[in-house]
Amino acid sequence: MLFLSEQTIKEAVSMKDVIDAIDATYEIYQSGKFQMPQRMQVKEGDNTLLLMPCFTGDAIGTKLVTIFPNNESLPTLHGLVVLNDSETGDIQGILNGTILTGMRTGAIGGSGVRHLAKEDASSLAIIGTGVQGLYQAIAAVTERPINDIYLFNRSPEKIESFTKSLQEWIGKDVSINPCHTVEEALHEADIVITATTSNNPVLPDKQNLFENKLIIGVGSFQPTMREFPESVFKAADQVIVDTEHAIDESGDIATPIEKGWVDRESIITMSDLIANKAEVKEDKTVVLKTTGMALFDVVVANLMYRKAKEKGAGTKLTL
Amino acid sequence: MLFLSEQTIKEAVSMKDVIDAIDATYEIYQSGKFQMPQRMQVKEGDNTLLLMPCFTGDAIGTKLVTIFPNNESLPTLHGLVVLNDSETGDIQGILNGTILTGMRTGAIGGSGVRHLAKEDASSLAIIGTGVQGLYQAIAAVTERPINDIYLFNRSPEKIESFTKSLQEWIGKDVSINPCHTVEEALHEADIVITATTSNNPVLPDKQNLFENKLIIGVGSFQPTMREFPESVFKAADQVIVDTEHAIDESGDIATPIEKGWVDRESIITMSDLIANKAEVKEDKTVVLKTTGMALFDVVVANLMYRKAKEKGAGTKLTL
Repeated sequence: MLFLSEQTIKEAVSMKDVIDAIDATYEIYQSGKFQMPQRMQVKEGDNTLLLMPCFTGDAIGTKLVTIFPNNESLPTLHGLVVLNDSETGDIQGILNGTILTGMRTGAIGGSGVRHLAKEDASSLAIIGTGVQGLYQAIAAVTERPINDIYLFNRSPEKIESFTKSLQEWIGKDVSINPCHTVEEALHEADIVITATTSNNPVLPDKQNLFENKLIIGVGSFQPTMREFPESVFKAADQVIVDTEHAIDESGDIATPIEKGWVDRESIITMSDLIANKAEVKEDKTVVLKTTGMALFDVVVANLMYRKAKEKGAGTKLTL
Repeated sequence: MLFLSEQTIKEAVSMKDVIDAIDATYEIYQSGKFQMPQRMQVKEGDNTLLLMPCFTGDAIGTKLVTIFPNNESLPTLHGLVVLNDSETGDIQGILNGTILTGMRTGAIGGSGVRHLAKEDASSLAIIGTGVQGLYQAIAAVTERPINDIYLFNRSPEKIESFTKSLQEWIGKDVSINPCHTVEEALHEADIVITATTSNNPVLPDKQNLFENKLIIGVGSFQPTMREFPESVFKAADQVIVDTEHAIDESGDIATPIEKGWVDRESIITMSDLIANKAEVKEDKTVVLKTTGMALFDVVVANLMYRKAKEKGAGTKLTL
């Protein structure tokens, strides 16, 4: 059995590898050859344990996540992925679930950038400079020749450490610009990514700010959460979701449908887009909303396990 | 985070420690201070993944088990227990689930022997010499001055390796006697333990073979499975289950109730017995049926984790 820490995972796979795995996941999703039951949730007081198993033809994976919102010194989330052999059930790998989730969520955004952003996109706005925003920035830079990154965070003092982490990952060739307002961050950006935990729109309700841009929403994963105002949908030529689940799970899709800002029938999935080799034309406004799913975790965990094994990385353990 | 292999677990805890943890679990069960949702089952073809989470005040544990019945060279079951801190959700331990399950199931039998067998019980019959039978024998020897062990297995060639493993655990002071028939094995035994995967009674339907004995059933964990014939219930002065779940889950309790061999109202749980400090009188025939539950796994996993930490055993891992 192989144990993969955060450090091992960083050494074993590149963000590009993970974006490739996300694209492969969309093909599996389209083929229907997987089994992904509804996740199991155990609650006690404010605390939650989530169990998210998934079978693909190539692997069996289970993500375990604890959410303890009142943690002060420790992170509120702790995650682990257990990988079993799909032929024998044997336990193959145990992976740090936090970096796995971060990288795969970043890579879902990165796959969006790969397929939906204009080829010469050179500027990026990140609204929300937490861990998810960091992986989103890394993935976007992987796929397009980004020269300028504009950052906005509600607590501006957090931008500094974000900038430091980002520079460590991507080097210093990119100009990183902290902004005082969201509007300032959006102004010059070809790609806009929101990664907050907001319950109310974090983007200003000004349609002209969104025209001809790719807008990716990462934050809202519950019906009560929202990052997008109405004008995002007024500007949008196409609204895309990572999976069908996002339509009901995210307030950034459910609310606009309810309010009639977008027609449910017009929304397509990334799987449809990739399977049909559909092209999104230049100079269009495209919105991508992601909420993720366990299938991404298992495909990415299996990639990380195989790459680490090839490189002799990770800690070998005898059960 | 601490990783506990089979070897580490064997070194960190004794069977007596685990039997104490089982008794402590009955007290938690009686208090109701735990949360144990119905286990999650994911099936694909003949193969199954089981997820069994449980919260106690002291720990959060999740047992993951794969069951691949068509495995030939590898075991059909692979198990892992993930232990999270109940205060922070932080991942504390990853434990070999196979030895944990074996030892805790043995210890459930051992707790039965501790509370239900006559003080001077000196002989034991084990029907079914698989892994579960081994841990049952170890646990029974821990609690009573057993001099003679009688073994029966449908495939007698398996008795040799069982005997070797048993002698390694308990030393050679005990006389181990392979038997040609179940009846022969039962004849002299004060304690009888069945640990088979049978769908039909493995004990002969002869009431006099059971009088004044403690009969413990480990095998039947589904309504279609049975090890006990009617005469076991004719002989029984008291029928006891490890938990309420056993009444519906096991064919060794559900079928006798359905057929009127035992009155459902007369069945008590080990928790009732221990909480009420009820004594089972000498020279009575007592039947104990166990099917287990995730609460046992979590309490035992937490014990193993704490003992290993105290002793500096296990592999320290940085996530």
